[in-house]
Amino acid sequence: MNDTVKSIATLLKDLDGILIFPHINMDGDALGSSAAICLALRSLGKKAYIMINEPVPKNLDFLECGCTTDDDSLLDEVQLSLMLDCNGMNRIIGREDAWNRGKLKGCIDHHMSKSTDIRFDFVRTEIKAAATGEIIYNLIRALGVPVSLDIANCIFAAITTDTGNFQHSNTTARTHDIVGHLHKIEGFNSKAISALIYDRKSKEALHMETEVLGNLNYYADGKVAVGRITQKLLAECGCTMDEADGIVPRIMSIDGVEIGCLLKETEMNVRASLRAKTYANVERIAASFGGGGHILAAGCSFDMPIGEVESLLSPKLEAAL
Amino acid sequence: MNDTVKSIATLLKDLDGILIFPHINMDGDALGSSAAICLALRSLGKKAYIMINEPVPKNLDFLECGCTTDDDSLLDEVQLSLMLDCNGMNRIIGREDAWNRGKLKGCIDHHMSKSTDIRFDFVRTEIKAAATGEIIYNLIRALGVPVSLDIANCIFAAITTDTGNFQHSNTTARTHDIVGHLHKIEGFNSKAISALIYDRKSKEALHMETEVLGNLNYYADGKVAVGRITQKLLAECGCTMDEADGIVPRIMSIDGVEIGCLLKETEMNVRASLRAKTYANVERIAASFGGGGHILAAGCSFDMPIGEVESLLSPKLEAAL
Repeated sequence: MNDTVKSIATLLKDLDGILIFPHINMDGDALGSSAAICLALRSLGKKAYIMINEPVPKNLDFLECGCTTDDDSLLDEVQLSLMLDCNGMNRIIGREDAWNRGKLKGCIDHHMSKSTDIRFDFVRTEIKAAATGEIIYNLIRALGVPVSLDIANCIFAAITTDTGNFQHSNTTARTHDIVGHLHKIEGFNSKAISALIYDRKSKEALHMETEVLGNLNYYADGKVAVGRITQKLLAECGCTMDEADGIVPRIMSIDGVEIGCLLKETEMNVRASLRAKTYANVERIAASFGGGGHILAAGCSFDMPIGEVESLLSPKLEAAL
Repeated sequence: MNDTVKSIATLLKDLDGILIFPHINMDGDALGSSAAICLALRSLGKKAYIMINEPVPKNLDFLECGCTTDDDSLLDEVQLSLMLDCNGMNRIIGREDAWNRGKLKGCIDHHMSKSTDIRFDFVRTEIKAAATGEIIYNLIRALGVPVSLDIANCIFAAITTDTGNFQHSNTTARTHDIVGHLHKIEGFNSKAISALIYDRKSKEALHMETEVLGNLNYYADGKVAVGRITQKLLAECGCTMDEADGIVPRIMSIDGVEIGCLLKETEMNVRASLRAKTYANVERIAASFGGGGHILAAGCSFDMPIGEVESLLSPKLEAAL
């Protein structure tokens, strides 16, 4: 099943009372896409909210746009629960009750990994879309909603973060075509949005980054590099985990590194962010541990101490070279 | 005087024996633009070379494309000397004799600052072009030369480096339109080019970056940040100055920093790279010291010890807030 953007637009026009669900550990694409479609639906006079149960990362705060809530009782009736940038219940943990209120269930996503635990009424998956934001942009156009400056900022944030600023291999001519359109919108300023996303790093976060990069473990003659953020390091630097954004690309910038891995010790588990520079398939590794993502960028979680995760994971990373 | 791309294309078609001059301390735009037009001219059967007298930065080595030389005697006759991404003799120091061999002199550039020490036969200046690479792309189209994969790689490198990966305020709809076209060329892979430019940082360079970022001087309550690379630091880290690429954006990523400055102590002088995050005009400061650039990104040089440069420059940076 893969519905068209046009058919989804037609359906949305007849609905009211919409809860939008970005994935846990929300990123720029999950939140930016959610805010863009929420603003578009509201401009059509509909009641819509983004349902979250975790703090919005500081560098993405401008994407809330008055749309986020942790209180689904703001809606008397939920005609649609819409999952964005993900497709399984394990990606909206803690929001199951709100999700189940939707009479219809929909999904718009660009990830390869597919969960089968939800019976969606409609699904739009474009694995060639660089970001869910690309699909949302086309959906907003199909809805006939003018792209406001606020919507443009959300779409830009979604796309630029998910493409590594238009460098990653998921970037296509369509990606540039869409962002070219955003630039034509009165008042659009990529630099201002970019500065909000990337240029508000605290001195503490800079210190943490330095510590992680100064203590990488290398495997396979330096082709694999593994960094670690422990709860202890967070406490020492006075940082929260969402300030770790931007460390993975630094690991990938090192000469000779093909696979980079950042292990994040949260209070619940250990999350692994995996990246490949050019040829290795890290999606396969992530999937083998119940995670997912794309060939060159994926992630998975572990319920064991961080040292054991590194011992378990590093031979798999070497084997993927 | 501002000639059209079309008229320059018409002129170029009748010329042979062309020397191309990127600016000193060549960057991705200077070298990428030079290589793109050199390859295009050669594809028309013309003799053309890029005239340089300094090593190509390691991360830009793939842009040489067999076009660079320090020996202008490879051409018996020089019908055109073409200056790219700059417009004054002070930007091609040490190459004056080769420059003077050109019967015609041309200039293609996108910088605001204008030198008056050369009588050009044609000039194309587009200060709204994000990169000289944009103008060169249009010139190559006007020449009727098919954009080969090699040319596409050069144009992409020129544009992505000069726009800070499509984040800087110089980025326009046209920028994205051009790069969208590049993505349609068979075999084009932005990630592969990006990895060559950005992801070959040596561990030594990473160490140097950590040292610079750990020893920034802040002024004006943290709104101004100044970093320094001395010859001593280079020696300690085992680095060359061209490995300092990428440190300035790191300085700009710090919360609250509006103006960032990186002072580089070379064997000849001290170079200052100036950046503003959103509103300050650093081009004016650079120009007041005989340098130039753009409002948010500029540079200048000093013939005095690095400590004195910082004492002289930092009050000017504070005053520009």
